[in-house]
Amino acid sequence: MKPFSSPSEPDTGPAEAGPGGLFDALLAAGAVRAAVDDQAWLRAMLDVEAALARAQSALGTVPAAAAEAITATARDHRFDLAGIGAGATGAGNPVVPLVAALRAAVGPDTGRYVHAGATSQDILDTAAMLVVRRALAPLHDDVARSAAAAARLTETHRDTLLPARTLLQQALPTTFGLVTAGWLTALDTAADAVAAAGDRVPAVQLGGAAGTLAAFGPTGPALVDRLAAELGLTAPVLPWHTDRSRLADLAGVLGGAAGSISKVARDVTLHAQTEIAELVEEQPGGSSTLPHKRNPVAAVTALACATQAPGLVATLLASMTQEHQRAAGAWHAEWRPLRSLLESVGSAAYWLRRCLEGLRVDAVRMRANLDATGGALLAERVSGALAGQLGRQRANEIVKAAVTGGPAAGLAERLAADPQVGTVLDRARLDELLDPAGYLGAYDDLIDRALRAHHRRPDQGDR
Amino acid sequence: MKPFSSPSEPDTGPAEAGPGGLFDALLAAGAVRAAVDDQAWLRAMLDVEAALARAQSALGTVPAAAAEAITATARDHRFDLAGIGAGATGAGNPVVPLVAALRAAVGPDTGRYVHAGATSQDILDTAAMLVVRRALAPLHDDVARSAAAAARLTETHRDTLLPARTLLQQALPTTFGLVTAGWLTALDTAADAVAAAGDRVPAVQLGGAAGTLAAFGPTGPALVDRLAAELGLTAPVLPWHTDRSRLADLAGVLGGAAGSISKVARDVTLHAQTEIAELVEEQPGGSSTLPHKRNPVAAVTALACATQAPGLVATLLASMTQEHQRAAGAWHAEWRPLRSLLESVGSAAYWLRRCLEGLRVDAVRMRANLDATGGALLAERVSGALAGQLGRQRANEIVKAAVTGGPAAGLAERLAADPQVGTVLDRARLDELLDPAGYLGAYDDLIDRALRAHHRRPDQGDR
Amino acid sequence: MKPFSSPSEPDTGPAEAGPGGLFDALLAAGAVRAAVDDQAWLRAMLDVEAALARAQSALGTVPAAAAEAITATARDHRFDLAGIGAGATGAGNPVVPLVAALRAAVGPDTGRYVHAGATSQDILDTAAMLVVRRALAPLHDDVARSAAAAARLTETHRDTLLPARTLLQQALPTTFGLVTAGWLTALDTAADAVAAAGDRVPAVQLGGAAGTLAAFGPTGPALVDRLAAELGLTAPVLPWHTDRSRLADLAGVLGGAAGSISKVARDVTLHAQTEIAELVEEQPGGSSTLPHKRNPVAAVTALACATQAPGLVATLLASMTQEHQRAAGAWHAEWRPLRSLLESVGSAAYWLRRCLEGLRVDAVRMRANLDATGGALLAERVSGALAGQLGRQRANEIVKAAVTGGPAAGLAERLAADPQVGTVLDRARLDELLDPAGYLGAYDDLIDRALRAHHRRPDQGDR
Amino acid sequence: MKPFSSPSEPDTGPAEAGPGGLFDALLAAGAVRAAVDDQAWLRAMLDVEAALARAQSALGTVPAAAAEAITATARDHRFDLAGIGAGATGAGNPVVPLVAALRAAVGPDTGRYVHAGATSQDILDTAAMLVVRRALAPLHDDVARSAAAAARLTETHRDTLLPARTLLQQALPTTFGLVTAGWLTALDTAADAVAAAGDRVPAVQLGGAAGTLAAFGPTGPALVDRLAAELGLTAPVLPWHTDRSRLADLAGVLGGAAGSISKVARDVTLHAQTEIAELVEEQPGGSSTLPHKRNPVAAVTALACATQAPGLVATLLASMTQEHQRAAGAWHAEWRPLRSLLESVGSAAYWLRRCLEGLRVDAVRMRANLDATGGALLAERVSGALAGQLGRQRANEIVKAAVTGGPAAGLAERLAADPQVGTVLDRARLDELLDPAGYLGAYDDLIDRALRAHHRRPDQGDR
Repeated sequence: MKPFSSPSEPDTGPAEAGPGGLFDALLAAGAVRAAVDDQAWLRAMLDVEAALARAQSALGTVPAAAAEAITATARDHRFDLAGIGAGATGAGNPVVPLVAALRAAVGPDTGRYVHAGATSQDILDTAAMLVVRRALAPLHDDVARSAAAAARLTETHRDTLLPARTLLQQALPTTFGLVTAGWLTALDTAADAVAAAGDRVPAVQLGGAAGTLAAFGPTGPALVDRLAAELGLTAPVLPWHTDRSRLADLAGVLGGAAGSISKVARDVTLHAQTEIAELVEEQPGGSSTLPHKRNPVAAVTALACATQAPGLVATLLASMTQEHQRAAGAWHAEWRPLRSLLESVGSAAYWLRRCLEGLRVDAVRMRANLDATGGALLAERVSGALAGQLGRQRANEIVKAAVTGGPAAGLAERLAADPQVGTVLDRARLDELLDPAGYLGAYDDLIDRALRAHHRRPDQGDR
Repeated sequence: MKPFSSPSEPDTGPAEAGPGGLFDALLAAGAVRAAVDDQAWLRAMLDVEAALARAQSALGTVPAAAAEAITATARDHRFDLAGIGAGATGAGNPVVPLVAALRAAVGPDTGRYVHAGATSQDILDTAAMLVVRRALAPLHDDVARSAAAAARLTETHRDTLLPARTLLQQALPTTFGLVTAGWLTALDTAADAVAAAGDRVPAVQLGGAAGTLAAFGPTGPALVDRLAAELGLTAPVLPWHTDRSRLADLAGVLGGAAGSISKVARDVTLHAQTEIAELVEEQPGGSSTLPHKRNPVAAVTALACATQAPGLVATLLASMTQEHQRAAGAWHAEWRPLRSLLESVGSAAYWLRRCLEGLRVDAVRMRANLDATGGALLAERVSGALAGQLGRQRANEIVKAAVTGGPAAGLAERLAADPQVGTVLDRARLDELLDPAGYLGAYDDLIDRALRAHHRRPDQGDR
Repeated sequence: MKPFSSPSEPDTGPAEAGPGGLFDALLAAGAVRAAVDDQAWLRAMLDVEAALARAQSALGTVPAAAAEAITATARDHRFDLAGIGAGATGAGNPVVPLVAALRAAVGPDTGRYVHAGATSQDILDTAAMLVVRRALAPLHDDVARSAAAAARLTETHRDTLLPARTLLQQALPTTFGLVTAGWLTALDTAADAVAAAGDRVPAVQLGGAAGTLAAFGPTGPALVDRLAAELGLTAPVLPWHTDRSRLADLAGVLGGAAGSISKVARDVTLHAQTEIAELVEEQPGGSSTLPHKRNPVAAVTALACATQAPGLVATLLASMTQEHQRAAGAWHAEWRPLRSLLESVGSAAYWLRRCLEGLRVDAVRMRANLDATGGALLAERVSGALAGQLGRQRANEIVKAAVTGGPAAGLAERLAADPQVGTVLDRARLDELLDPAGYLGAYDDLIDRALRAHHRRPDQGDR
Repeated sequence: MKPFSSPSEPDTGPAEAGPGGLFDALLAAGAVRAAVDDQAWLRAMLDVEAALARAQSALGTVPAAAAEAITATARDHRFDLAGIGAGATGAGNPVVPLVAALRAAVGPDTGRYVHAGATSQDILDTAAMLVVRRALAPLHDDVARSAAAAARLTETHRDTLLPARTLLQQALPTTFGLVTAGWLTALDTAADAVAAAGDRVPAVQLGGAAGTLAAFGPTGPALVDRLAAELGLTAPVLPWHTDRSRLADLAGVLGGAAGSISKVARDVTLHAQTEIAELVEEQPGGSSTLPHKRNPVAAVTALACATQAPGLVATLLASMTQEHQRAAGAWHAEWRPLRSLLESVGSAAYWLRRCLEGLRVDAVRMRANLDATGGALLAERVSGALAGQLGRQRANEIVKAAVTGGPAAGLAERLAADPQVGTVLDRARLDELLDPAGYLGAYDDLIDRALRAHHRRPDQGDR
């Protein structure tokens, strides 16, 4: 299911990405790159100019034939992207040379109807919103598929025992299904937030040179609504040339998604450590000379991509201080971090999906890691069982002495040998208490809650 | 109106702030400081411990008398904040010494029911959520009152003419009411986002040492719900010890609010420049030796406070990479930026409200600034009127020549003197075209839209 | 003068940039882009592989003919950049496919000597250092030329009066030469810091798979020194695979340079405001329909570029937490922000140079702005002259009353009319005190200090 | 040794810290907190006012008795910090109420010589520089002592074998001494950078209201030098009211130091994982109910503190865009992040020192972890030995098959059983090749280089 509202003109989605650069296959992976690259921005700007002409035609201020010609040319003509980019220096943005090129392409008679009454920022901001919407669709898809993979892991490994770890120390037993249920809820939250932002953020920008719609004459307000309808975007209360709340909203959502992706990827790298070896990626990175290496390359790359987000979010937030009716620099400052943020978070989501969809779980190793401490993780439970009769403090002392008094394997024996313990617990009960499978709390309920919440989400129908 | 859901226990709101430090009256102004200071955190942690005991009592795992005694002691006992802080180094958080102090205060018999089954992070995270909810109320209030002040300015100055400015250059005529309508929609968005976050973000945290609820026995899941009810917080799907989406959500909202505050405050400082002098604060900062200075101190301070946000948001987002079931550092890393972010954005909102509520508007000066360019701002309009008969290019050339061909005051004469202009426009029509009041586009409609949207918002009933 | 140490192999400097994208002419302007683009990184990686072979040949572990063949192929062969980039996903970096391509290009006999003993990070980090050195040269050049332009403005406008402004309010008289002297010292500091970083930061990276140099046999340490000599880079104390101090050092310097550029550019935009109009860029951006607009496009674009820096610096600093002997993500996380930071600050410097080299100063307008307050800026001075006889408080009161008691133009009269003033100052002395040219403090000395410091700097010989 | 230049007035160093807040013992630990708290700022501002009076007395513009009285009062009078803070709102900074309080304390006759000619920013910026210098001394001390601890570990564990780890996977053998040598060089770099910043950054600020020194009369420039000498600060080329290069310089250095601290602390937490167990802190954090936990609390807290730095650095860098002769907000925006940055990095250094000074190394476990892969880490070496006769590709294939063909313990046997291996290597040579102690590369030389570099540093004399 596509969680974003549909424009009147069908969204073609990201085009095939062109050949990438040296780092793009890693750091701008997945379908988002093609949705935010220069061609995508050019396409979006042309879509806006064409939609503007059609909207004006519908309101009678542009002839229908002109609107059709502009639309056809915007769609089919091959514009010189590099030339338009080079021409951006005069006015400080690429819309001015694009309009010149579009006017030239349609010829002088029709050309006068191109960009009529609009200001460059109208076009570029609306195009940015199209780019955002087109980029969020595949980005959401990768986050949602990561969540789906986490849900499958949760179902499969509901009862797979392993140690919970706090501050990187083994703490108590848990199950891998509960671990991945935690990943699942974080990724569901991220996916839902991205989908909601995809519906909430993209709005048309149309205000003319000063936000008054003066150059559009009396049809201005109607034109805003009509343009919004043409492009499937929201019509905002006001032109938002210097109210950048929409970008801040998006930035916050993407920053949060990056953080959740990063959390999961970081966990995978930790579970995959040579000494822990509980997880292996389907296609771990290796080395011809170090054949034992099973580098969790997908998780590592997801982390690298997600790490870009906080700084880019900060740049977008800091750029909100936009002066008067058009900013002297802060508007221009948004273009790169907006693209980089979409691209980086999209790439992080792509790699996390790759990582989770092929993740191999070594349940035997998980259990071995849990048993390596010989029951010390159940200390809390044994203390609890002793505390009723011996008092909490004495119970804690006895258990601590047993845990730290010798090798892990002998813990049960040491506890059983304690005379006070014997007065409270027999050996069978002690072994029961030291069985990690019996001290998993509400894991089953919690997993059910997470899976129920996942499957109840609105876009789960067709997965 | 209070836009946040009510806890079962009435929220007392922020206490009176203690005496501030050297910079607090400026940089931590308003009611938020008292809601996030050490006493507020201590209060919140005690509230959580007490509510936990009550919730356990309701489920039958703690005697009612013990729950009552814990609640009374948590409420009334004077705890040694500095001692608790100093005791935090052993375990790495202040909950451990707080629990020891609370147990000591209630005595050994009741003490065993204090913090039963909980982990430090359960208490600190839930307390953080209480702090967040208590801080968001006054923060929202200041943002909403800033918006209300902007609404009043919009109504009063609907027709007050001044130049719109783009890239800090005069562009076209607009009205100050439309300028402040832009402030209004940005501030409304911020206020609504803060209110929504206040409802959405605060959730109880309860999972025990490893997030399985193991130490709570079979009543664990019910206990989560009950604790949530006691505190008026949401019960989450899962314990969120290392899923920090809630904090990211809050951070994004606060970062966006800071950006919108900053935009408005920046505009005030620009309008207040000596050479522009369109706005003066009610209590401008002065200097005994520079009596002409009318420093917009409130706007300046709002800017200084809002500037803190992007970096703090980045720190919170970067701290989302939390390992396994409890992070080794990233959790602890949240405490300071969370407090600073609430405090800084709260202070920014306070100063903006102060600024806007007392803002003095010099409509005469606005008009004088508009007239200083002698109609050059209407060039677009004159060109438009000529273009039909003379062609767009020729029209632009004529107007450009007139604008740049002499002092501003003579523009109308220079245009009238152009023979081609005369063939199209008589002098009366020319003067009409050069009247800024006639080229304001849809300003009136747009202002109506902004005010309507403002007054339709759910929390506007009682203002 | 080139402020960077010379490699044994002459640095060709940045190649001609390829055609840019939509935003590159604005946001990645100047020569730095070509120095940090994909081709530049590929070139640098090939330079490192070739230098490694030559260094090994010098130490006798690689035949001279092989080293020559590798060098020639690395220099002349046309590698498939997109293919190498696409091949990066397997190992998680582009060195592995590059080595494969280089081996294929030199053939199997020589191929075995390619990359012998090195790890991918050795190549990529050393290449990054080459990229840094090559990018810093033009970046420094643009900063230094901006400083030179500021020095010329300082000399020309040493005595050009205008109001100093604090908190955007007129404060006291100053001269534009002293204003630009402030720009000059900030830009000199930035240029010197960039030059020093260019000497201090770039170091060779060579450690092999684990930083022990094990695969290089006994010649390892000598090889590090030799490779450093081949490339004109420093030989570090240790391999720095996970000690990223060098990048942090560079990031701090670039962040500081961006801040200083931003300060100057911001000032230009403020001086260029329509109502202030003291400065105009040589080629201000305009609009066909708004012919009066004189947008300071170069300053605006410099601001937009410089705004990228703080967030990118934060990302690089946050990426310093690199695990063990090679990081799981944090290393990969550096590549994009390093490039973007160099590119953005380079572009900011380019635009600032463009802005300052063609800046037009309207001294008449500066004086008019100063006179607009009718001497109020001299209040401090008049108070001082009265305070000796009347006391500071009474003096301040009299002056304040005169300043706020009527229109600016009548200030002198109002002061002269005060009976107490008359007992202390006659009208001639009063007029003298109100002459801004007489209250410029040590401006002349200060300008001399700034210019002397500028001209004494080591790289000023050949400018 | 104190690496910072001495003021004429002896620096008393940070006072005893007052009682901390809830989180201060963790997040603002060590001596830096007392050096940057409100009392320290108040002290520094008073020191500047007193030094200004003395400097003016030396130049004859203030009577010696007045300067002495001001100095004595500034030193001995108990000022009402909270009242001064509360009074800061009028003028937008705490200097104005402080000056009023100081004037009141010295009485009216002397009071007129207090703050004569200075602007608030002169005092606050100079005080900030005193605070910086006083805070950097203990901060440097903790970094340098961390480095010293790393040097001791390096000497002790020069030959202690353990696996090097890349991407969190075991890679090749190394020694713990080489690991800590890497920590050492990073920490030495940080300590040296902090010391250099302590000499380079702190400069006096004196310019008067507009940076012209006008109110000081002809002695202005001499007064700057004299004030600098009084306070042991550098005399800058120009007043730097809006040139914030010094703070950017400091921020970059502190950000880099935080990153290096973070790297080392992160490594400790990884080595301390239950499953790896190579390091334990002297006083690990525990839990009464989880007695097996040995939380590396010092490293964890160091990480939490260091994590604050990137965002704070970004805020300081973003605040460099300061308008004209005094910024409208960006100056005020520096105060909090400057303090927080010093405090956080100081606290990180404190905790890292605590961590490293008591670090316990389990060499047996390190060796066991190395042996757990049964020689697989030597695969590179065996391949190398085979490649000469069998070709690189065939050698890699054989070794890979042996590594992945069965349990770790049987690797040597599997290799020995390969017929082709037998033609090249006998079993004794094979065992030799599989001995990790024989494949440590230049570790000994590298450790020597790191220790030599450490001991050669200028401030090592008295440690």
